[in-house]
Formats: sequence, structure tokens, C-alpha cells
Amino acid sequence: MEKSEILNIVKKAKNSFLKTMNLNNDSKNLALEKIAQKIEEKRKEILFENQKDLSLALKLVEEEKLTKSNYERLKLDDNKLNTLIKGLNELKTLPDPVNQTIWQKELDDNLILKKVSAPIGLIGVIFEARPDCFIQISSLIIKSGNCAILKGGVECQNTNTIFSKIVNDALGEIKTFPQNVINLLYSREDIKEILLLDKYIDLIIPRGGNNLVKFIKENTKIPVLGHSDGICHIFVDKENDFENVKNIIIDSKTQYPSACNSVETVLADKNYPYINNLKNELTKAGIKIIENPDSFSKEYGDKILAFKIVENIDCAIEHINTYSSHHTDSILSDNQENIEKFMNLVDSACVFSNCSTRFSDGFRFGFGAEVGISTNKTHARGPVGLEGLTIYKYKLQGSNNIVAPYATGEKEFKHKFI
Amino acid sequence: MEKSEILNIVKKAKNSFLKTMNLNNDSKNLALEKIAQKIEEKRKEILFENQKDLSLALKLVEEEKLTKSNYERLKLDDNKLNTLIKGLNELKTLPDPVNQTIWQKELDDNLILKKVSAPIGLIGVIFEARPDCFIQISSLIIKSGNCAILKGGVECQNTNTIFSKIVNDALGEIKTFPQNVINLLYSREDIKEILLLDKYIDLIIPRGGNNLVKFIKENTKIPVLGHSDGICHIFVDKENDFENVKNIIIDSKTQYPSACNSVETVLADKNYPYINNLKNELTKAGIKIIENPDSFSKEYGDKILAFKIVENIDCAIEHINTYSSHHTDSILSDNQENIEKFMNLVDSACVFSNCSTRFSDGFRFGFGAEVGISTNKTHARGPVGLEGLTIYKYKLQGSNNIVAPYATGEKEFKHKFI
Repeated sequence: MEKSEILNIVKKAKNSFLKTMNLNNDSKNLALEKIAQKIEEKRKEILFENQKDLSLALKLVEEEKLTKSNYERLKLDDNKLNTLIKGLNELKTLPDPVNQTIWQKELDDNLILKKVSAPIGLIGVIFEARPDCFIQISSLIIKSGNCAILKGGVECQNTNTIFSKIVNDALGEIKTFPQNVINLLYSREDIKEILLLDKYIDLIIPRGGNNLVKFIKENTKIPVLGHSDGICHIFVDKENDFENVKNIIIDSKTQYPSACNSVETVLADKNYPYINNLKNELTKAGIKIIENPDSFSKEYGDKILAFKIVENIDCAIEHINTYSSHHTDSILSDNQENIEKFMNLVDSACVFSNCSTRFSDGFRFGFGAEVGISTNKTHARGPVGLEGLTIYKYKLQGSNNIVAPYATGEKEFKHKFI
Repeated sequence: MEKSEILNIVKKAKNSFLKTMNLNNDSKNLALEKIAQKIEEKRKEILFENQKDLSLALKLVEEEKLTKSNYERLKLDDNKLNTLIKGLNELKTLPDPVNQTIWQKELDDNLILKKVSAPIGLIGVIFEARPDCFIQISSLIIKSGNCAILKGGVECQNTNTIFSKIVNDALGEIKTFPQNVINLLYSREDIKEILLLDKYIDLIIPRGGNNLVKFIKENTKIPVLGHSDGICHIFVDKENDFENVKNIIIDSKTQYPSACNSVETVLADKNYPYINNLKNELTKAGIKIIENPDSFSKEYGDKILAFKIVENIDCAIEHINTYSSHHTDSILSDNQENIEKFMNLVDSACVFSNCSTRFSDGFRFGFGAEVGISTNKTHARGPVGLEGLTIYKYKLQGSNNIVAPYATGEKEFKHKFI
């Protein structure tokens, strides 16, 4: 697409934000309802478009340009459409995340300060080739009163296009909605242009491969929310059951090896009595164990685990704070004191005890949907749902108050929450 | 300072964060108490060091390298020291902003998710030459469990040095505190090095001139919290009292003309009956009125006002959303409907009605202190106190739970707030 064309799309979308930011919850819920209805009505067309993507992808598999498992991820079926519809209906039931008074305070008589939740603005989301992403992300954007520029994985292009049409048709039927709220871009080149438009775009959320995220972070002044690596750890404390440890590590590694919340390194206390049994069982489960990896900062994304024996819990915590990508780290232990120590001292977005690292996910956390997982230390951390798409504004309602008498000490503030 | 030396300071400070993040409120309050005590004890030495800064600055005034009003800002006196001590004592009374459970949720039986407030990490603050900044910023950093690299204005170098010694002496007397929590840098060159250390520094807060903030935003990958411009507006609606409008505009412009929350542009509804009287009164108050400015994006920082007559409130809102720096904008009106419209549709950090733009300030908002004012759309917006120095982490406490049965549908989540 031409530069000027992209700028035009972005400017129009930003302009729409001046209307979406004050849409009431009913309008937004009506939008979600209409999208759900249209998905229901157009099942056949959607699956037909998805089939086009699959045919093209199959060629890529034959040419060995796409893995079989990535091909599988492209498939939509009636079940997945049901899940999308269910998700839209669930989002409808959630309270409006914006235009809510967070607190209010009397600064002085008839001088009332309110902190009110607000949408962020124009958000760019770059997401992987999965056919359910477009609807999930659009619905979060709509419910939170933001506008979006979306760029999906090319392998889902036909599916994304029909979903984009469905969403925009649905919004077009609602009088209160401005146009150009949800905008779909197609090419990787377009992303480069988008990254330069920090005057209009308030936040970029890249999902998908490390390289994409790193590229984006290095090439934009727009705030970026996301994670580049998913180097998650499990620490096996000395006091510990064998079956549970085995099951949790196998789940954390094999349940979906390429996910960002899969475990990459197991640290075992040298006094854990079943180290050898554990390694045998993990190997039996199809996991390749690497005891002296070249680097502890590597994300395998496969049934491979780095394995290290450590002196004690303190060494484990130090290792994790050094090598973790601060995404998700879990301790397996029967010792409550050690559990608390680990959860307090490990500086990661998600710190778990006695459970799989794979729970680190917006759906599993009960956020309804997830726009991404963040390892940032500002704005939003961990799985990000509606709340991470909001900020706030301060509204101060006065009665002809001026600052001068407070500056001289003639008047004093009350600062009383009401 | 040598590059390696700066890197060393930054690494040590980041390492200290692994301890400060879990300090309890008592330790942090003890630190604030000891700092207050030491300021009380060392009044004479502090004022002596401040006098050194003033002598050097007086030469700059004579050489016309420093304005008289900036020179005045450098002065400490017993009154200002009292205010600092009072501020430290007030901060002590506030609840711990970190390690607090924000909410907890039962994902399933014996699988409890907690969202817990947490400090951010290592924060770089670059601040203007004002002698009270160092203590105010340090105290917020300490109370919020963060660590900091501070760089103050060179004209306050001697004052900052003695305050840095006082703070570090105080922290050194508390066993639970690690070393290297509060670190002072001196030269502008050091800032450039700091900006490259995105691996260690989690947030940069620049305070002061537009050029500084712009330079920082353009030269770092670290998230930046702040504002480069303070182009604030007042809209005078058609239904309006004369005295109040006059008083509020004069206060907003003349109370401290170089402050970021001073008004730069007044927009008046063409049907406001007292436009000419108003202009006369503003001129009498020493304000220069510019009716056709070259640009509405200029921050005068002086007793100068751009003045524009607009068709109606909608045109005023459109003008503000186009030219405002999204810092603070105020409507003066007797019409409640228009007030609400303005406050909802103006996309700025602070939207006011019937009061001075100068209320936009952490102290006046009752935050105890202020680390800066943000026009960002993510993390923190408007005046930033303790809360803007915090983030959160997710703690998930399980009982040997794995994801597989939830993925297959064998188990379902409860997602129940408790």
C-alpha cells in the first residue's frame, strides 16, 4: 500500500477515536451481539474463505515453507466458530471498562476531582496466523472504546478479510458507531510505515515470534506492549513429591511446546532425592534433556529442556532473575516458606507455585480474552485483557476556583475521598 | 564519568532492586523518618551548600546566562526545609503502595490467582534545578520500593550532593536496606550513557524543558514518562459570568507563567457578550494578547496568551483536540450540558470545569508529592505520584494443577473472585 494511503487510514482511525471513547456500554454490546449474529449467519462463507487459506497453506507445507503444526493452527471449524460466538457473548456480560469513576476526592469545597477510566486511543496490533485472532482482538478493542489498525499473519488473509467485512458491516449498522474503527492491513511492508506514525498511534501490541517483537521494539517510538522471549523456569525444591513434579514438568513442556508459557529450564535442588528418576521419566515422555546448554537464554519451542542442579533455592532465584525473560516462573515445593520466598523474590510477571507454567494465559486467568502477554514493567504486565487497553483521565469540577489563595497559604486543601 | 563506571553504578542499583522490592512498610517509613531527622539536624550545612550554588548562579545571572526568576528558584530557606520535612512525614502516613493484593480469584479449587501491586524496578529521573526535587523524588522512590538513578540540574549541584549524602547516610543506618538505592549523577554527558542501558533501566522520567524531554524520547528504547509540551487551553462558553472568567484566566496565566500547567490559548465563544471587556482586563493584568499567532502549538511560558474567537463549543473541542498537548484544558461555563460534553470529548490527561488550569499538580491533587506530569496514553497520565511508580505481578498458588484437563474440556475453570 502507498505511504499516503496508510497515513490516510491511520488519520481516519484516530479521528474515529474521538467518538468511540465516549460510546456507551449498550452501543458497544450491541456491536458485539451483531458480530456474533453475523458469524452465525455466515458460517458457510467463513469456512469457505478459511478453506482458501488452507489450500494455499497446503502448498507451502509441500514446499516445506510451513510446518505441519502451523498448518493445523490455520483451520477453522464449527467448534471454533462456536467458541468465538461464546466469547463475544461473554464479553457482552462484562461491565464497561471505561468511563467509570475509579475514585473521587474533594480537593476543597465545590472542587471535586474524579479519576475516570478511559480508553487509550489508536492501537496497532500485529498478530500471528490464527483464524480466531481477528475477532478476539477486535472485540476487545470495541468493548474498551479504542480504535485499531490490525495486521494478521498472511496465511490467514482470506479468513481475516471476511471477518473484517463482518465486523465492519456489523458496526456500520449501528448509528452511534463512527466508521473506520477496525482497520485491516495486509502486508509486512505496511508495518514499517505504521511504526513511524507515533503522532497518531498510541500503543503497538505485537504478538508472535521473537524476531517480530524485537524488530518492532527497535524501530518505533510508539510504546510497545508484549514479550519477545518466553524463557520460563520451574524450580524443583528439595522437599517434594515425585508424581506431582513429574506431571507438572511434563504438562509445562509437552502440552504445547511452542507456546511462550512453556517451560524451557528446570532447576533442581541438589538435595531433591529423585533427580535421576525425574530425568528418566521426562526422557520417557519424549523430552530431550540438555544438561550443559551453551546458553540458558535460549527458547527451544520444542520438547527440549535445559536442566541444571542448583545448590539451594537462593541459587535458583538468582539464576531465574538472571536468565528468565520475566514471563512466568514456577516453584514446586512442599515448603510454604520457600514458596513465599520464591514468589516474592522472583521478579517476573507471573510467579507460580505447584502448578504448570501453562496457566499463564488471559483465558485461564478469567479475563474473557487476551490481547497479548506483556513482560513490560510499565502499564500492563502478564496476560493482558480489557484492563490493559485502558488508561484514565482526571476530571476536576470547580466553582470558579483559582490557585493563588492556596499558593499563599490563605486557603488549605481538604483532600478528602468522597 | 567513564562509561564503565556508569554501567557499574546502574548494574549495582538494579541489583539492589531485588531487595528493595520486598522491603516492608516499616523499613521504608523508618528511612523516611531518618531522612527527615537528618535534614532537621543538618539545616546549617544544607543552607551553606545551597549558598554555594547561589553564589555560582549569581555569576551566571550577571553574565546573563541565567534568568533572575530561575535564580530565585534555586534558593532554599528554613521554610522550604520545613515543607520537605512535612512532606516526608506525610508520605510516612500513606499505606504501602506495593505488595498489596489488588484482587484474588479462584481459578479452580485450590488454584488461587492474586494480582499483587509491585514496584517497577530501576527508574531514571532527570530533573530541573530546584533544590527541593532531590528529596521529594528520593522519598517517592523509597516509599514505592524502587531504586533510582537521579540527575539534577547543574545549578543545584552542591545542594543535591549534600541531600544525596543525607539520604544515603540515612539508608545506611537501616540494616534491611541494600546499598546503592539512590544514586546521583552529575553531568549531562552521563544522561546519554544512561539512555542506552535499556537492559537495566525500566523507566525514565524527565522533568523540565521541552527540548530535554524530546531529546530523551528520541534517544532511548526505555519507556519515557513525562510531557514535552504544556499547551493548555481555556474555553470561555457563551453563558458565563464576567468576574469569574477574568479571575480564572488571570490566575491560569500569571500565577506562574513558565509552569507547564499555565494556560497558553483562550478560546471564546463568539456569543460570549464580554469579549472586549475581557481582553481589556487581561491586558490590564499585564498579559499580552496575540489574536493571530503564527502557530497555536506554541508554549509561551510568559505572560502572553493566544486568543481565538470560535463559532461554538464543538469548534473549541476540535481546536483543543488538534492543538492541545493533552496536558490540561478547562471550560468556563454556566451550562452543565456543555461542561459534560467538554470533559467527555476533550482527550487530555486533565479536563477541568470552572477552575484554573494551575490545579493540575500532584500536591494539589493530594498525591503527597509528584514525580512528574505525564501526557502519555499508557501507564500513567496527568500528575504522577506513588501509584505511577508501581506495577503488579500475578501470583498463582496451586496444588499440583496441570493444564491438560482444562485444554481437553475434562475440567472447567471457576473464575470466581474471592
